Amino acid sequence: MSLSPASPAPSLPIPIVPDVPIPVSPMSPPSPSHAPSSPPNTPPPPSTPKSHPHPHRITGGVPGPSPLPKKNPTMWLGARLDALPTPALAVDRAVARRNAERMQERCRALGLRLRPHVKTHKTLEGGALATGGTRRGIAVSTLAEARFFADGGFDDILLAFPLPTGRLEECAQLAQRLEAFQVLLDSPEALQCLRQRPLAGGKRWLVWLKLDCGNGRAGVRPTDPGALPLARAIAEEAPGEVTLVGVYAHCGNTYGCSGVPAIQAIARATTAAVLDFVASLRQAGVPCPQASIGSTPSCSHPVPEMSELTEVHPGNYIFYDLQQTLLGSCQPQDVAIRVLTRVIGHYPHRNQLLLDCGWAALSLHGGAQTPAGCATVEGHPQLRLAGLTQEHGLLEPVGGRMDFGRFPVGTVLALVPFHACATAAMHPVYYAHEEGEVVALWHPVRGW
Amino acid sequence: MSLSPASPAPSLPIPIVPDVPIPVSPMSPPSPSHAPSSPPNTPPPPSTPKSHPHPHRITGGVPGPSPLPKKNPTMWLGARLDALPTPALAVDRAVARRNAERMQERCRALGLRLRPHVKTHKTLEGGALATGGTRRGIAVSTLAEARFFADGGFDDILLAFPLPTGRLEECAQLAQRLEAFQVLLDSPEALQCLRQRPLAGGKRWLVWLKLDCGNGRAGVRPTDPGALPLARAIAEEAPGEVTLVGVYAHCGNTYGCSGVPAIQAIARATTAAVLDFVASLRQAGVPCPQASIGSTPSCSHPVPEMSELTEVHPGNYIFYDLQQTLLGSCQPQDVAIRVLTRVIGHYPHRNQLLLDCGWAALSLHGGAQTPAGCATVEGHPQLRLAGLTQEHGLLEPVGGRMDFGRFPVGTVLALVPFHACATAAMHPVYYAHEEGEVVALWHPVRGW
Repeated sequence: MSLSPASPAPSLPIPIVPDVPIPVSPMSPPSPSHAPSSPPNTPPPPSTPKSHPHPHRITGGVPGPSPLPKKNPTMWLGARLDALPTPALAVDRAVARRNAERMQERCRALGLRLRPHVKTHKTLEGGALATGGTRRGIAVSTLAEARFFADGGFDDILLAFPLPTGRLEECAQLAQRLEAFQVLLDSPEALQCLRQRPLAGGKRWLVWLKLDCGNGRAGVRPTDPGALPLARAIAEEAPGEVTLVGVYAHCGNTYGCSGVPAIQAIARATTAAVLDFVASLRQAGVPCPQASIGSTPSCSHPVPEMSELTEVHPGNYIFYDLQQTLLGSCQPQDVAIRVLTRVIGHYPHRNQLLLDCGWAALSLHGGAQTPAGCATVEGHPQLRLAGLTQEHGLLEPVGGRMDFGRFPVGTVLALVPFHACATAAMHPVYYAHEEGEVVALWHPVRGW
Repeated sequence: MSLSPASPAPSLPIPIVPDVPIPVSPMSPPSPSHAPSSPPNTPPPPSTPKSHPHPHRITGGVPGPSPLPKKNPTMWLGARLDALPTPALAVDRAVARRNAERMQERCRALGLRLRPHVKTHKTLEGGALATGGTRRGIAVSTLAEARFFADGGFDDILLAFPLPTGRLEECAQLAQRLEAFQVLLDSPEALQCLRQRPLAGGKRWLVWLKLDCGNGRAGVRPTDPGALPLARAIAEEAPGEVTLVGVYAHCGNTYGCSGVPAIQAIARATTAAVLDFVASLRQAGVPCPQASIGSTPSCSHPVPEMSELTEVHPGNYIFYDLQQTLLGSCQPQDVAIRVLTRVIGHYPHRNQLLLDCGWAALSLHGGAQTPAGCATVEGHPQLRLAGLTQEHGLLEPVGGRMDFGRFPVGTVLALVPFHACATAAMHPVYYAHEEGEVVALWHPVRGW
């Protein structure tokens, strides 16, 4: 996908996403039929597209007049991507859907339940795609996400974060309200905390034991002498109040790998560690119905051994990103998100362009990790981000002179972010599109 | 400030902010008088503090029950900081006010107008403090900020960003609506764009010429042969439609300095370059009423030469941060913001604690720049952040063994962020406090 001004037409680059082309078209105003009237407390826009004396297009160095004032993003439904105010987060809905379906197929083939983690997109729309429309069986990372998805009709929600013992009342509220609100813990103290707040109406706390199988973040190591007693305590100490649902391990250590074989080795080791622990539980007479591992790298190329688990919980795959491409989790054409940005200045003495996208729209993730930095410029591998401040980005050639004539002020470029989770977190709205036409606005939850 | 659980009482560290202590107190529920009823579409909380069978306090390794469910943050008015759900952004309002007043005094002493940049906090409350209550004369970095502050009663707003030629209609709307909405440009093309969209009602575009005096981002260099003709064109080409207000330079290159003398050398050079350009304009018969430079480092220790300017436009100083402390812009006790976080796990085999603060609440800024990383832990210089994922932080000692007994699960810690602009951008609400009691909720604008 490469967005460029309509006139003067630059020579079209070869898109690096050949199977999902986004037509390069003149800026078209959003269809009036999609533009709802402003809410009562907003002043009316000073002019409509039809009454405006100038056509809506970018004309290169001397840009034409602007699109409609941005006040209510729904006015952009039906617009072409290159008409959007920038910076903007664009989600290719067809690619996201394909990513969701492929993961569903992969899990079906292995006989695994897929519990998509929603922390990357934090939207009801993304959650609906990832669950294949069932809205059942997700992992969340914050209580704000849990409430948001519960409000949106989701159920079977696992708070995949160490039990927030300081916010137990919020957990109890969700547990009472949902059919299955599940929590995760890794210490006897957290279990005691749960037991001090039994649920009403015959409900039991649904608890996953978090295992650390080499990731080194939360979790008890399956080889820890306290691991089995803790699982037993969850299962047996107060069976009327607390239930052991399963064991849960995040193989985030796959992000340190280079190449699919190394990722698969970690997936294999994590699976074995989890299954060995479940077997030792069974041998000790402790029933542990579920076993879940996750991470997008491990689930994008699952190993056969994973079929012995009951579920997996990857999340990033619905968008993918530059990092996942570099890890080998996906191909460039699988990355569903872009940050759209415009060229806002030419600085020939520095051999640089200025973009209206800084870290406030992209994040600084990836800046230190790869030569590509925080993003690549789609269709323009000869360019690189040389620096980001809050609202500005500096773009320069990897080598040689910048072809300024090819990038007039107003040119729309699409950045492929290094880390989709971090970039998405910067945006209050995502513009979902199909073949370059905005078809929906996704509003993520934020906060805690 | 050092927040710790009330019982068991850890040995109190020596606070690194001795003059603004935040009392270590038992968790107190928010005052019922400050807790408005929920909006009609939210379910009622399942219990109130009074009806809850357990007292609201953290009891160390086995924490007590949780505070009120977090749904409407206004319920936290009147609460102690250590009762807040975490992660949370806390703003010490007295420190922010003192920072604002000191900058106002500095400018008064130099005979300079202060045009505070609001991009760091993006709140009406911060803007009111920074303008000393006048709500007149601010710089913004996005159109969303411009509209937000206009809606909030602010005027004399300078969009300190290269004229967004693709969104000119939004600029025109602000220009018509406000007494003084000002724009900034650095190219003849942007000027032509403005001229194609004259304002109605006898209004003129109020234009600043952006100069690049060594920062290397936006702006025309004052020595560029095109600089003077561009200033003349702004001033003279269409005097009924466009006015040259002044010249504007951002000395962001001060952020690369080590020590105040180096910062002052840049401030001196920038001031000289701006004033020389204004003098050459005057000599050429082009009136240029205003000259503005900015950056928190340069304005925190202004050089006498700056008194020849008409205004300055720093922004970060209202909060300051670890970066500014390291640069010498401020003392540790001048930093007004903290990210509050709780200990959520002990991992003795790794010698690490787990925190409920990841990059989603802190950003990754500073991780690569300093040994301190993205934040310091207030009152605990012997600890460092060893890693951040989206919602988790790993904390470990700089050397030696972690004293786990000192940091029971539930312990509240205060992180001093490296970059206030980046950290504030991650939070939907800031908890403003006076001596540890929440007195106001600040809601920043976001997006573009």
